[in-house]
Amino acid sequence: MDNERLRKQIAFILEADKEKNIFRQTHLSANGRRENDAEHAWHMALMVYLLKEYANEEFDVAKAMIMALIHDIVEIDAGDTYAYDSKGLETKEVREEQAAKRLFGLLPEAQGEELKSLFEEYEANETPEARFVRVMDNFQPLLLNNSNDGRDWKEHGIKKSQVMQRHVKTKLGSNVIWECSEKIIEDNVRKGNLIDDCYVPTRTSRPE
Amino acid sequence: MDNERLRKQIAFILEADKEKNIFRQTHLSANGRRENDAEHAWHMALMVYLLKEYANEEFDVAKAMIMALIHDIVEIDAGDTYAYDSKGLETKEVREEQAAKRLFGLLPEAQGEELKSLFEEYEANETPEARFVRVMDNFQPLLLNNSNDGRDWKEHGIKKSQVMQRHVKTKLGSNVIWECSEKIIEDNVRKGNLIDDCYVPTRTSRPE
Repeated sequence: MDNERLRKQIAFILEADKEKNIFRQTHLSANGRRENDAEHAWHMALMVYLLKEYANEEFDVAKAMIMALIHDIVEIDAGDTYAYDSKGLETKEVREEQAAKRLFGLLPEAQGEELKSLFEEYEANETPEARFVRVMDNFQPLLLNNSNDGRDWKEHGIKKSQVMQRHVKTKLGSNVIWECSEKIIEDNVRKGNLIDDCYVPTRTSRPE
Repeated sequence: MDNERLRKQIAFILEADKEKNIFRQTHLSANGRRENDAEHAWHMALMVYLLKEYANEEFDVAKAMIMALIHDIVEIDAGDTYAYDSKGLETKEVREEQAAKRLFGLLPEAQGEELKSLFEEYEANETPEARFVRVMDNFQPLLLNNSNDGRDWKEHGIKKSQVMQRHVKTKLGSNVIWECSEKIIEDNVRKGNLIDDCYVPTRTSRPE
């Protein structure tokens, strides 16, 4: 092929294919197999479009969709880090930075820079698009996990405080989705799917 | 949940999850497993963004991305019909029409109509967005299959004329991608990965 630019873009597209082999901790609905990053990103981008009315701020839908589509591409090199893996989270940033450099570096320079910058914008969580995409990144596995009666939490012995800590950014992007998420979390605490480590006995309670 | 609208949207989002279980004939690169519809749609939407400069006409990128994301959702009910399965193709339209009615009908009415109409617009191939998304629907499996030395064609004994017939719409959406596709197809004919049924002996050829 004599078109060097298109050749580079195709190289990136074929490399991106590997994202379909990066599996997450989340299971598909109906107690299916584990979900991979490409499916997760597809679902998130679809949700960005479907749920855009619930964003706290106006945002650019095309920008948020491409941000959702590429947000996990670095995991091709860096691997998936489970949201509640505190040890893995310590090294996540460095691993993902190196991956972004290599992967987006396959593209023609300006386009690679554009995508790398979109990825970094997502990570920084400081723009309306980044904040809303983050909501989807939290809400999508919450819906799947809830549909499987909290299976992923039960398997990993997850505590309510950990989930609340993860979802703290949901409220920044969407009050409506946060309210819905909170109800789902509370419901799973009641069912015993999440360990309730936030319970504080009241002073008035007496032994019976 | 007291928000009836959000409840319907969540029902659709969870139903859409089933697209991850609809497997295509195409194999992932590096001779991987078969690809599913959600991964294929993710890859296509990413490619719409990356390759937008090659479209023959100006188009709305957000609209084309959401079109790519939902274009195969009907296969949850209708199943995947292989591009070269002539018998399956006869009933495809009716099966997919019924599926579109049920699936998009899960959404709040106006939103369901919007998505159904986007799906129908894609199928009709009469707008710049539909034409460019169709290019991606052809080019994405072509790249994967080519990266696997034409494995999918070899397994099904596909002829060059069948591939050319499928790709006839690629040219309508992108001359550049068509030229690239044609080179890939010719290369696979030369390698014997595609049956060359377009060969016509010249009048001057003599038995040796």
